[in-house]
Amino acid sequence: MTKKKIAVVLAGCGVYDGAEIHESVLTLLAIAQAGADYDIYAPDVDQHHVVNHLTGNEMPEKRNVLIESARIARGHIKPLTELKATKADALMLPGGFGVAKNLCTFAIDGAGCKVNPDIERVIKEFHSSAKPIGALCISPALITKVLGKIEVTIGQDEGTAAGINQMGGTHVKSNHGEIVTDHKNKIVTTPCYMLDANIMQIAEGAKNITEAVIKMI
Amino acid sequence: MTKKKIAVVLAGCGVYDGAEIHESVLTLLAIAQAGADYDIYAPDVDQHHVVNHLTGNEMPEKRNVLIESARIARGHIKPLTELKATKADALMLPGGFGVAKNLCTFAIDGAGCKVNPDIERVIKEFHSSAKPIGALCISPALITKVLGKIEVTIGQDEGTAAGINQMGGTHVKSNHGEIVTDHKNKIVTTPCYMLDANIMQIAEGAKNITEAVIKMI
Repeated sequence: MTKKKIAVVLAGCGVYDGAEIHESVLTLLAIAQAGADYDIYAPDVDQHHVVNHLTGNEMPEKRNVLIESARIARGHIKPLTELKATKADALMLPGGFGVAKNLCTFAIDGAGCKVNPDIERVIKEFHSSAKPIGALCISPALITKVLGKIEVTIGQDEGTAAGINQMGGTHVKSNHGEIVTDHKNKIVTTPCYMLDANIMQIAEGAKNITEAVIKMI
Repeated sequence: MTKKKIAVVLAGCGVYDGAEIHESVLTLLAIAQAGADYDIYAPDVDQHHVVNHLTGNEMPEKRNVLIESARIARGHIKPLTELKATKADALMLPGGFGVAKNLCTFAIDGAGCKVNPDIERVIKEFHSSAKPIGALCISPALITKVLGKIEVTIGQDEGTAAGINQMGGTHVKSNHGEIVTDHKNKIVTTPCYMLDANIMQIAEGAKNITEAVIKMI
């Protein structure tokens, strides 16, 4: 039997300006532990900005999302333009501010945000091919912006939940490690570091969402 | 009962010029899952260089080891100058080329390498306080340079093993997930990505070494 293939899209390397590293690594681990394979993709675009993760201040630098994401992927990564729904059985999006700054502009523009055209196309292709999509942390905001009427969770943050409802989605509150499944749209979401979580709770959330996504394939 | 505290030292953020990200995250996870706490430290020094992880080429940039390590630590990190052996029950060093480029110069100078004075002091303090040290991947080369006559593993790479023996250590071959324990010196080592490993094997190695280190406290 061929292994199931999951496409994982990263948004950089670091919680404040890229992909959240723990969520990314623990999603990759959960995919492997569930007996599936992964391919990693990221858009070949400049980051919105670069944040010094020690101080939280912006740094006067430019970094590229694909090149920085390659750090998490150990070099095994492809540009997002190469990802088609035919290339994988499911799509997974770890979180981190990069999702809301580099893949879309939700962190800056809220419900009126713009979406990177490649991730928009990829999300629509997987959805219209009835292939499951798993979104961690803040990523549910991105897929709600693209797909509109879906049911998702980002945990308990009221501002973000309101933004999701404003974009046409339905927000469902959740706690550490819990997943919310929109069976009709084959979408699974989990809050991870959108709650004040520890690394074990991230591992639990990544495991739960990955198993649910793979079961839906 | 107070939780056991493990000091984890990072060497940047990315396998080719910093701390190996999977090894770092999975070590933190293993510590938490073993019921212990961690504090994360890194030296406040420039990286040896910056590597584009997509192409493997050097980039004309400067990055700081503490600031980049803060990405893995989600900002919860302290300068290595603040780490004393009195502050933790054990020391753990994930791998990545940063260990052999930023913490010491083994990747460039081999057995004749220089060692960052803070990590040298820290390793000596933990060793002389009879507090256990766990070293993953290439980190055993660093601790051998500092401590000399110890027994360690970096897996099966003959060049690196020869370097370890040249620095006064004794190299023991090992396979995926295996640990080598020097009981007399309270040192535990495991090969991780010094072998051609997958992410599950890294998780297994990180779990095994962490449990062995904590048992020795």
